[in-house]
Amino acid sequence: MRWGIIATWEMALEGVRHASKMLENGLNAADSMEEAIKMVENNPLYTSVGYGGLPNEKCEVELDAGFMDGNTLSVGALGGIKDFKNPISIAKNLSEERFNIFLVGTGAEEYAHKSGFESKNMLTEESRKAWEKRIQEMKDKSLSPYDGHDTVGMVCIDKYENLVSGTSTSGLFMKKKGRVGDSPLPGSGYYADSQVGGAVATGLGEDIMKGCLSYEVVRLMEEGLHPQQAAEKVVYEFSKKLEKRRGKAGAISIVCMNKNGEWGVGTNVEFSFAVATDEEEPRVYVANKDGDKTIYHLA
Amino acid sequence: MRWGIIATWEMALEGVRHASKMLENGLNAADSMEEAIKMVENNPLYTSVGYGGLPNEKCEVELDAGFMDGNTLSVGALGGIKDFKNPISIAKNLSEERFNIFLVGTGAEEYAHKSGFESKNMLTEESRKAWEKRIQEMKDKSLSPYDGHDTVGMVCIDKYENLVSGTSTSGLFMKKKGRVGDSPLPGSGYYADSQVGGAVATGLGEDIMKGCLSYEVVRLMEEGLHPQQAAEKVVYEFSKKLEKRRGKAGAISIVCMNKNGEWGVGTNVEFSFAVATDEEEPRVYVANKDGDKTIYHLA
Repeated sequence: MRWGIIATWEMALEGVRHASKMLENGLNAADSMEEAIKMVENNPLYTSVGYGGLPNEKCEVELDAGFMDGNTLSVGALGGIKDFKNPISIAKNLSEERFNIFLVGTGAEEYAHKSGFESKNMLTEESRKAWEKRIQEMKDKSLSPYDGHDTVGMVCIDKYENLVSGTSTSGLFMKKKGRVGDSPLPGSGYYADSQVGGAVATGLGEDIMKGCLSYEVVRLMEEGLHPQQAAEKVVYEFSKKLEKRRGKAGAISIVCMNKNGEWGVGTNVEFSFAVATDEEEPRVYVANKDGDKTIYHLA
Repeated sequence: MRWGIIATWEMALEGVRHASKMLENGLNAADSMEEAIKMVENNPLYTSVGYGGLPNEKCEVELDAGFMDGNTLSVGALGGIKDFKNPISIAKNLSEERFNIFLVGTGAEEYAHKSGFESKNMLTEESRKAWEKRIQEMKDKSLSPYDGHDTVGMVCIDKYENLVSGTSTSGLFMKKKGRVGDSPLPGSGYYADSQVGGAVATGLGEDIMKGCLSYEVVRLMEEGLHPQQAAEKVVYEFSKKLEKRRGKAGAISIVCMNKNGEWGVGTNVEFSFAVATDEEEPRVYVANKDGDKTIYHLA
């Protein structure tokens, strides 16, 4: 029986490996993916997700997360939450509600508190120093504060044909207080339909949300495209549209997996991702744009 | 030369009438729609948008808004902002930025303050009384607190083929603090592409965001469907999918207009809307579901 998990960025490998054992042992997709994303959130070395995430302009670590259950299309999402250890778990919990499934700011924090989730100051000494350094650099030269937007996103399918997707991120380094990217927005940062497949995005959220790119990838898989074709078509056609309409396109990278465990990747920048299925050991690939194709090789 | 504006709910009529004069006089779509939505926001009698909007469970009026420019695909959005008079104007302003275009909570309020937007306590005496009454009713019987989610949404095209869409709402009455619906989410609550058309949604945001419904309507218009066909197809197919996957579907109503000023409406509940074009006087219609069709008549 098929199972599989695909995730954005090399930092996801440890989580993908852990989830692959859970999936092999018959655990479900939602729990396996949650554990995988928590491993990324909990690692202070990863400066774009969870603990150790780089702070906003006010030196606050504000986190976004999203979760989607492809069976019921249930969504849970958080925007701009501070001081909670595992945003993905809170988003997953929210997805079980009918109302109030997308919470932001202090309201999200109150929900997480009342629901018993673990609070934690997510700012590390290293991240605080990186913030101070950047503030100094911005004084010295006219440096753009906005880079380092490496959202972890995953699509996961288990032996029972349950398919989920999820994201977690601290967003743009030096973002404005309260800034939300594509990561918590269903259809932009993530989408899942168990009868078709799932997709997740990373890159410049402000551009990704202009095209509902994760939804569009899943829709093209439903039309019959292979995940690889779907991801490439969406990334390159939308990048061209942005260039035509706006003069430029930000970084966009998408990974996706269909209900058969076949996967794909599309990117307009160099981009690493991790994947494991019942037929493939957990591995990291590096992908690059090559014309209207995305080529990739083992890292 | 064609121009047109279509808007959710009868409450939009006054704004639509005002905007139609602006459009006829050659003003642009973005400014005309902004003025139309501001008229709904500023009217305390409309209890689901702006001043006089019904509060959340804590008796706070938290507002959501979104704006999209169909030429550049630029988006601006606000979630859970308090104490500002015209969220649509703040969202429109945000759409001119490249980064930090979607702001929530206190971060959104700081941006609005620094940008010079007018602050205002948006809670009226009438809304406070409605909140107290509902709290009492909920004590007396097990009443669901969640109804009254009448977002104002508009699509507008001007003589110069500029097309925009926008939304503004106080969201679900008695929502949890920090709850965000579909209204600020690009692709869910609103979408616009000047080369195709635009769409806006109202209803149960938690369900609308599961399907990126405004994006999907615009996509179908791009495939060649008439706006009426596109709106009906999206509302009824997605309602059926929700019923199949989740056992029930919330209220969903969509209005849309293509670049030629042709318009359409799809709804699974009784729903009023206002429309004006260079060929049609400002009028209100009432729409209802009739099988897989939406029928409507003058109010």
